[in-house]
Amino acid sequence: MSKILVTGGLGFIGSHTVVELQNEGYEVVIIDDLSNSSESVLDGITAITGKKPVFEKLDLKDKTGVESFFKKHNDVEGVIHFAASKAVGESVQEPLLYYENNISTLVYILKELKKLPSAAFIFSSSCTVYGQADELPITENAPVKLAESPYGNTKQIGEEIIRDTCKVTPSIKAIALRYFNPVGAHESVEIGELPIGVPQNLVPFITQTAIGLREELSVFGDDYPTPDGTCIRDYIHVVDLAKAHVVALKRLLEGKNKENYETFNLGTGKGSSVLEVVQAFERVSGEKLKYKVVGRREGDIISAYADTNKANNELGWKTELSLDDAMRSAWNWEKKVRSK
Amino acid sequence: MSKILVTGGLGFIGSHTVVELQNEGYEVVIIDDLSNSSESVLDGITAITGKKPVFEKLDLKDKTGVESFFKKHNDVEGVIHFAASKAVGESVQEPLLYYENNISTLVYILKELKKLPSAAFIFSSSCTVYGQADELPITENAPVKLAESPYGNTKQIGEEIIRDTCKVTPSIKAIALRYFNPVGAHESVEIGELPIGVPQNLVPFITQTAIGLREELSVFGDDYPTPDGTCIRDYIHVVDLAKAHVVALKRLLEGKNKENYETFNLGTGKGSSVLEVVQAFERVSGEKLKYKVVGRREGDIISAYADTNKANNELGWKTELSLDDAMRSAWNWEKKVRSK
Repeated sequence: MSKILVTGGLGFIGSHTVVELQNEGYEVVIIDDLSNSSESVLDGITAITGKKPVFEKLDLKDKTGVESFFKKHNDVEGVIHFAASKAVGESVQEPLLYYENNISTLVYILKELKKLPSAAFIFSSSCTVYGQADELPITENAPVKLAESPYGNTKQIGEEIIRDTCKVTPSIKAIALRYFNPVGAHESVEIGELPIGVPQNLVPFITQTAIGLREELSVFGDDYPTPDGTCIRDYIHVVDLAKAHVVALKRLLEGKNKENYETFNLGTGKGSSVLEVVQAFERVSGEKLKYKVVGRREGDIISAYADTNKANNELGWKTELSLDDAMRSAWNWEKKVRSK
Repeated sequence: MSKILVTGGLGFIGSHTVVELQNEGYEVVIIDDLSNSSESVLDGITAITGKKPVFEKLDLKDKTGVESFFKKHNDVEGVIHFAASKAVGESVQEPLLYYENNISTLVYILKELKKLPSAAFIFSSSCTVYGQADELPITENAPVKLAESPYGNTKQIGEEIIRDTCKVTPSIKAIALRYFNPVGAHESVEIGELPIGVPQNLVPFITQTAIGLREELSVFGDDYPTPDGTCIRDYIHVVDLAKAHVVALKRLLEGKNKENYETFNLGTGKGSSVLEVVQAFERVSGEKLKYKVVGRREGDIISAYADTNKANNELGWKTELSLDDAMRSAWNWEKKVRSK
């Protein structure tokens, strides 16, 4: 079975994807620099799949290290590239960190893939490339908007680098997956999201508030032009998202791609408001969540959810889990993490 | 007098700028990797200015080397950053080379500048960021268009990286200079353009054809919607361009900039067609140039020339030399180079 490199494979989405890859029989090698993850995640993956993936601690900014890795693992047939910095606010404060972490590392990996006889490459992109789209739901043909943060810009630039590379290097086939809002945890409660510091995303903030780690949830604005006035996002269960990576990888390995470089939205197709997410949490947990409405947050877009037709029809993948499933697993995960 | 680092200081525009800096009394340190230049350019600079600049051979992709340089030269007050790969066609064939050469190196330098108490930074950008502008002449407010090549994209991305950095790091003040089409040579004929291989630009191709190195000049299309049917560009004498760098640097060192990050067009404001350039060459050289009209070249825009108001009024700089001056110096330079 093909050997697949998963960079950032101990992170939130990475670890769930490693599980699905191993469940499908792929041989997985993980690279992670542990800057935003823990080696103990390996135990969770092993508990679920019964197999411990190979792990190499490596900072991908170490160009020589990347070269050595590919010399050692020259039978890698595919790469799923999660490793990247991902905090929007931090990217505004530390743009150079983001441009280096997210771009130089991508270039180093692609340079090594050029040397292989063939390679499948899956890139973690984001719906942030669309900004506030003019039409909803958002299709893959919606124009890419001027990035609102260095983080978002690195995703756009990453897509451009891959597109330009695939244009002249047919041995590399690539898919950029544009994630909407990944939430939830594995139902086994062996792996989940482990935010460092104050969570920047809604769902971990909700569960940390419910468990008593945060005072209350701030809802940023309830005067948006949406049914209940709060912002709307497309929350996708991380296990559904992880499975999409395996499907996309298989598409490339089996040569079923239509072009050398393709993009797919990964979302549920359904938008949920902040208050609807709070209600879902309260419904599945039986807990009452403390929250207050505060002013709008700069840079927040009003509404974004995916048109899933291309992913459904061409990838042959669709989400199977609900927002309630996601909130339940996220809450079970939070309770497990804090009970330790 | 301030110590200024000039990266790519042995290249075409770099060497002319070093001359102007030294003429103004600045202490210059050059970094160049000699990948597209010759160490003998130092002799030309020395012959003109009577002073040999400090030269350090360094590939800026060597991050540790960049760090060591700034440890040694921690009294650098300004950087003029020319070092970059610049061939549009090559960038299409080797996108990763361009993304690494032009972006990683910029990030490494800016990271070092963050450590200094203050720093002035001048970036070599290009009118390619405008693509085919909707309005002529092109002002600095014209929208940045989707890049047509990885080269052009690295210039856009470079501007974004600098803009994002200056936003949060007030100790770094920067100006991006958007060059139109630099041509000509120093009137002393001690330095000039030294294209490697077949020239990608019009003027060196003309002079190499006239001297017998090339069979004939191909004029790509004479059916464009312009007065004589050939493409129109804004050809700026490299000595005028070099002087603009000194003016921009001084603006930052003296704190006269209005914002921490500014952009200026560097052009003459006058568009010249390909055939007009050929005629200017024939006029000043007394040579008859062999050329033939061939089909249009993919990706060529029809017409581009600068609105120079912002540079004239805010920088207090304008061009002093004509297209004839440029063609005369380019021809004298070609004759000197080939007679060696």
